[in-house]
Amino acid sequence: MVNHYTTDLNCDMGEGFGAWNLGNDEAIMPFISSVNIACGFHAGDPSVMKKTVKNALKHQLKIGAHPGLPDLQGFGRRELHISAEEAYDMVMYQVGALSGFVKAEGARMHHVKPHGALYNMAAKSKALSDAIAEAVYKIDPELVLYGLSGSELIRSGLNVGLKVANEVFADRTYQQDGTLTSRKDPDALIKTNQAAIKQVIGMVREGRVISLQATEVNIKADTICIHGDGPSALEFASLIYREFQKEGIRIK
Amino acid sequence: MVNHYTTDLNCDMGEGFGAWNLGNDEAIMPFISSVNIACGFHAGDPSVMKKTVKNALKHQLKIGAHPGLPDLQGFGRRELHISAEEAYDMVMYQVGALSGFVKAEGARMHHVKPHGALYNMAAKSKALSDAIAEAVYKIDPELVLYGLSGSELIRSGLNVGLKVANEVFADRTYQQDGTLTSRKDPDALIKTNQAAIKQVIGMVREGRVISLQATEVNIKADTICIHGDGPSALEFASLIYREFQKEGIRIK
Amino acid sequence: MVNHYTTDLNCDMGEGFGAWNLGNDEAIMPFISSVNIACGFHAGDPSVMKKTVKNALKHQLKIGAHPGLPDLQGFGRRELHISAEEAYDMVMYQVGALSGFVKAEGARMHHVKPHGALYNMAAKSKALSDAIAEAVYKIDPELVLYGLSGSELIRSGLNVGLKVANEVFADRTYQQDGTLTSRKDPDALIKTNQAAIKQVIGMVREGRVISLQATEVNIKADTICIHGDGPSALEFASLIYREFQKEGIRIK
Amino acid sequence: MVNHYTTDLNCDMGEGFGAWNLGNDEAIMPFISSVNIACGFHAGDPSVMKKTVKNALKHQLKIGAHPGLPDLQGFGRRELHISAEEAYDMVMYQVGALSGFVKAEGARMHHVKPHGALYNMAAKSKALSDAIAEAVYKIDPELVLYGLSGSELIRSGLNVGLKVANEVFADRTYQQDGTLTSRKDPDALIKTNQAAIKQVIGMVREGRVISLQATEVNIKADTICIHGDGPSALEFASLIYREFQKEGIRIK
Repeated sequence: MVNHYTTDLNCDMGEGFGAWNLGNDEAIMPFISSVNIACGFHAGDPSVMKKTVKNALKHQLKIGAHPGLPDLQGFGRRELHISAEEAYDMVMYQVGALSGFVKAEGARMHHVKPHGALYNMAAKSKALSDAIAEAVYKIDPELVLYGLSGSELIRSGLNVGLKVANEVFADRTYQQDGTLTSRKDPDALIKTNQAAIKQVIGMVREGRVISLQATEVNIKADTICIHGDGPSALEFASLIYREFQKEGIRIK
Repeated sequence: MVNHYTTDLNCDMGEGFGAWNLGNDEAIMPFISSVNIACGFHAGDPSVMKKTVKNALKHQLKIGAHPGLPDLQGFGRRELHISAEEAYDMVMYQVGALSGFVKAEGARMHHVKPHGALYNMAAKSKALSDAIAEAVYKIDPELVLYGLSGSELIRSGLNVGLKVANEVFADRTYQQDGTLTSRKDPDALIKTNQAAIKQVIGMVREGRVISLQATEVNIKADTICIHGDGPSALEFASLIYREFQKEGIRIK
Repeated sequence: MVNHYTTDLNCDMGEGFGAWNLGNDEAIMPFISSVNIACGFHAGDPSVMKKTVKNALKHQLKIGAHPGLPDLQGFGRRELHISAEEAYDMVMYQVGALSGFVKAEGARMHHVKPHGALYNMAAKSKALSDAIAEAVYKIDPELVLYGLSGSELIRSGLNVGLKVANEVFADRTYQQDGTLTSRKDPDALIKTNQAAIKQVIGMVREGRVISLQATEVNIKADTICIHGDGPSALEFASLIYREFQKEGIRIK
Repeated sequence: MVNHYTTDLNCDMGEGFGAWNLGNDEAIMPFISSVNIACGFHAGDPSVMKKTVKNALKHQLKIGAHPGLPDLQGFGRRELHISAEEAYDMVMYQVGALSGFVKAEGARMHHVKPHGALYNMAAKSKALSDAIAEAVYKIDPELVLYGLSGSELIRSGLNVGLKVANEVFADRTYQQDGTLTSRKDPDALIKTNQAAIKQVIGMVREGRVISLQATEVNIKADTICIHGDGPSALEFASLIYREFQKEGIRIK
């Protein structure tokens, strides 16, 4: 899906709800290539979804569904012990819900990326990731499944016949087994923008990352996740965009 | 859509939620021709929706979405003052959500019928009914819009270019202006099954109903709503089915 | 409850939910005397409620419950047609829910003020306001009921035996019958801070307000509502605080 | 709290929501001594809560709050990874919410028993059970904390200074370490009413239970949980009531 000089920059968006805003969606859109839109379970509501779809199309971005756990108060970040069938059902529901808004604008949905705890659970559980991949395939076999690079979700997507995108994170450190450092670890986040940019460029061009243990680890980087909230989100988005241009990495 | 000797019998289904069941869906399915499936706002959840879609297909029923107001506790029966744009958004979301389950089974959605207070509000408000009709049309212009016979919703559906189905009620009495008698009126419901059957047959064959004021009123009856809950729902469904067969009215 | 030179300044607070913040609670607390804390139906969640109670006590503010309609997406601002009994039940539930957090901090709840559409509906409907007043009285007859100055809610509170606080708005214009100008009217809001301050001082000291129709209207002003969100909320709060000090009006 | 010839029979009640009923509350009330009332997070709504409180008082039952996880669709039975502080907050909120209805009827809440996954998580996690016990104590130090016999929740309750009730289950089998057999095990449930009754009487009179491994295990049985839903709930409730009378065990 990508070569060493082309990549996809994705960002979670549409994370407001009712009277509450979150993130700085429109300001960041010029610097990215795809959006993952919350579908009402962990964030987002029908009105926010419609608006976010319209904005994304204005910026010619690829549109993805970002289904999450039914936990609005916890923003879908708390693990909930669901069955594989429940995972299938809730992904089907949410992807379908977004699809109407996309179709209404004469566009087509490009991908699906599970959110938060559902993403993390699916990265490790074959049962959950198989169920999610099946739901995505049955709605539309042309959809691309975004998942943690090298995870169960990627394997399940390939098994069911979907195109996949191995996702890496610009601002997170990695372990020597290629997994993300847990957020509970004080070293989970990369401290400076420059170090983050350097890591990302290495992942995109060399397919490698230096782990926290100082070993070189192979990693597939089809798409890079950047964050849309936080005070420096916009600054980082524009920085990575400029650095990629300098380095000849095309964002598409 | 119908002639005097063919009609559609529809029933609201999939109205459970989580641990809670409601109605007697599978027992009633043999006697009807189309189902309106709750989409999670007033009733229904992703798992109930999937199961109801599968059951409906087993019985070769036409599948419709039954979007409602976001009021689970009130079962979508309490009027909520939403804007036309909010109506568009919530219908789009819910119809989309159901569409995934239908598509996953290799089937196609047939119609959309708003639920409860949304149905009643849309019957009277051109702004709401225009918004709802537009949402339905934009998701799929082949969908049939079910609405109260002769209501604003029917007009909006025709205006936007949708096929429509004028809905009548088997067990409700009518006013001389062709509207339903308010549920607050003690005479809102027809007392006996035989009287209900007689009224329905008159509506289907003659296009007429005798109002509470004893006048004859013209009414278009493309589809007849019967209820799926209550102790006598199954009995009434099988009765109307048998009487229609006797009278040569085809349910399709 | 107040004389011409003492008043209460109240502000709605605790209106975040989960990952979402709203308003600038802590910055405004030094300038007011009582807070109305959202109770989870239109805004607020258990964690936000606890934190807001603690902050209010740090600033020695009077704590009130701010029960709303069960409409998180609409922020409790959309009219929902509930019965009087449902109003009783939902007020009882929410006031009780907040009371635990207050008690846990060794404090005592001071008042209850319905929120948004529930407040407006109760201002006009005797059935709803009687039900709300009864719920408040039955939880704790010492609670003060805040309601729109001169409204049904005030009357119901007095009838049931509660202390009441007639509420006026600093930034809203009034009609010659003493009601607020509808928000749909372009003249609903007072344009300048100085005009708002002047109106408030007139209401507190003279018990009078000049209506949009330029007539002088009697109005009881036991408590003044200022808003905690919006870009200029903090500025206005500190301004009204200073002006009151200049004018010798005590905020307590 | 109990001797060998007196015990408490408790039952989860008020588990309907909106249009949905569950269980057979009123029929079972004559046979038990205390109720645990759902508080709106996993089941129950303000109207159901009020009604259940009133019914319980008619039958002179001890009233307890039954707080659960915020997972209406999963009925609070799915594990959700919450922090200890979130557990404190959600228990405080729910116990408070019920307390209003109890107070409004001139009664007093007797106990608190966590529900479903929250109950099971608290049985094993000291952090969660400490937080729950603290919340209960801070609302009212006179409340009795119901928890799995011998669990962390019982220890936390005692540590904080609460009275506790060790709960046993009439229809569940036990392991040799005194824990319940997992529901995933086909032997989790006792097959016959007679065997269930025999086990309960042994627990109440001897403080012992025969484990699935055929060993005798000491167990404290201050209160016995019976289920209020399922087709045979009423039959079992009346059976246990009669057998206890025969055996001279007082239910109080």
